[in-house]
Amino acid sequence: MVYYLLNIRFWGVVMKRSNRLVILTDFFLEYPRKHIQLPYFVSLCETTKSSISEDLDIINDVFQKQGMGYLQRTTGASGGVKYIPEYSHKKSMQFIDELKNKLEDPARILPGGYLYMSDLLGDPTIVREIGRVFASAFSKMDIDVIVTVATKGIPLAYAVASFLNVPVVIARRDPKVTEGSSVSINYVSGSSRKIQTMVLPKRSLEEGANVCIIDDFMKAGGTITGMVNLLAEFDAHVQAIGVLVEADDEEEERVVNSYTSLVKITNVDIRHHNIEIQAGNYVENHIN
Amino acid sequence: MVYYLLNIRFWGVVMKRSNRLVILTDFFLEYPRKHIQLPYFVSLCETTKSSISEDLDIINDVFQKQGMGYLQRTTGASGGVKYIPEYSHKKSMQFIDELKNKLEDPARILPGGYLYMSDLLGDPTIVREIGRVFASAFSKMDIDVIVTVATKGIPLAYAVASFLNVPVVIARRDPKVTEGSSVSINYVSGSSRKIQTMVLPKRSLEEGANVCIIDDFMKAGGTITGMVNLLAEFDAHVQAIGVLVEADDEEEERVVNSYTSLVKITNVDIRHHNIEIQAGNYVENHIN
Repeated sequence: MVYYLLNIRFWGVVMKRSNRLVILTDFFLEYPRKHIQLPYFVSLCETTKSSISEDLDIINDVFQKQGMGYLQRTTGASGGVKYIPEYSHKKSMQFIDELKNKLEDPARILPGGYLYMSDLLGDPTIVREIGRVFASAFSKMDIDVIVTVATKGIPLAYAVASFLNVPVVIARRDPKVTEGSSVSINYVSGSSRKIQTMVLPKRSLEEGANVCIIDDFMKAGGTITGMVNLLAEFDAHVQAIGVLVEADDEEEERVVNSYTSLVKITNVDIRHHNIEIQAGNYVENHIN
Repeated sequence: MVYYLLNIRFWGVVMKRSNRLVILTDFFLEYPRKHIQLPYFVSLCETTKSSISEDLDIINDVFQKQGMGYLQRTTGASGGVKYIPEYSHKKSMQFIDELKNKLEDPARILPGGYLYMSDLLGDPTIVREIGRVFASAFSKMDIDVIVTVATKGIPLAYAVASFLNVPVVIARRDPKVTEGSSVSINYVSGSSRKIQTMVLPKRSLEEGANVCIIDDFMKAGGTITGMVNLLAEFDAHVQAIGVLVEADDEEEERVVNSYTSLVKITNVDIRHHNIEIQAGNYVENHIN
């Protein structure tokens, strides 16, 4: 925020609309969901309130037509504007389709029937899109913080957090001396059936926080359940659970019921080198 | 990229400059360092090449005046434009100063003289700024991929990667069955003096890649050395090493010499509840 006001002096004269539009567009994309009072922009751009108001109309119009969200304006003494990034259903669907196609590549099959996904999770553009799609689904919810567990869910959690303008808290499988006192629980991982530990530093989460859990993968749901139980120790309210990929577990019933997935692995046939992927429940729940 | 062309039909008529500026600004910020030929924008905005060219002049002018980088244009048959995000020295310095002030808060002191930093590393806006500052420092280098080791360096690695438009590869301290065959090394961690293991999936990195290493913290440099040795197994060329925080280690000499740090912890006085933080070598090396 503070970096913005810094460069005003360079302009010297009153800024033209074309310049203001570039500056304001950049500002909204950089600070989604940040409430800004109009006088801030008036001073940022050295112009009048009515000019800024017209600029906002133009930007809002383009954002909406591009299916990338809208500017939420409020009137009154503390009124202002906030950019709410929300992907249109069409864009979300298109992205999920693309993800499906990428995951269906048989070269992804690893010994044991696992799928190699590190290339997709290592691509910052794809990760950002995943974040945008989840943030669109959870846009109307009251979320204070994103929680994930190390390691692979971390980039996704930050991507969602950046669009929702909230912090990220990372549970670990091993306590770190550099985080102070912590709360830990034991849980049974669904896929490996092993007893594992999950730890959250005491300082990292306020009591009673509204939480969104994000992870990359869910089978039986043991890890997610572990997170839910750990969060209960902080009296947190789990408002939403988002998993990138869910997979059917024939042997075990799923222990988590209320979640949002982008894609679902329905079959991995090692012998015939074939993977079947469907759209996740995101499509039924959020696109209609 | 593909999401962009999707919504053109909504516009119907030829787009006005004001609309184009919002669309193009968004595009550049969303896809930094992506080379785009002008005909793409001509069709995206249903306008003429000369209009797009004027739009780019306006955007380039604003980006430069705001200290947020520039549009790099190339002429000729495959010519086009690319947004190079580069923070001005003033903005980088201002951010490093702010970081210093935040870290000097005595409430951060943990038993053992460690500093609590998870709140800063959990803030997506701060993480993004750190990424932007590193990306500015490494902007002229030839980097194919960012490598980090789990856990805390991960968000920083993605932030740098997003501005350099390259993928992220994460080394782990435990091999995961879901990543296929891997290369591992043992190394001695500087701070704990324990022998540890670091693993990188074979599939994750091409041989001979140009690599930038990113991590959150460096004391003696054991972990970074471990990464350098592991990367040598892939014949990778380490072009740059970026650490957010470095700390003096009185007992041991640093084993890594060529690195860029944003801040440096010079003293943690547990008894008097005092922390001393200086700007890192970023300031000497990249701001002059």
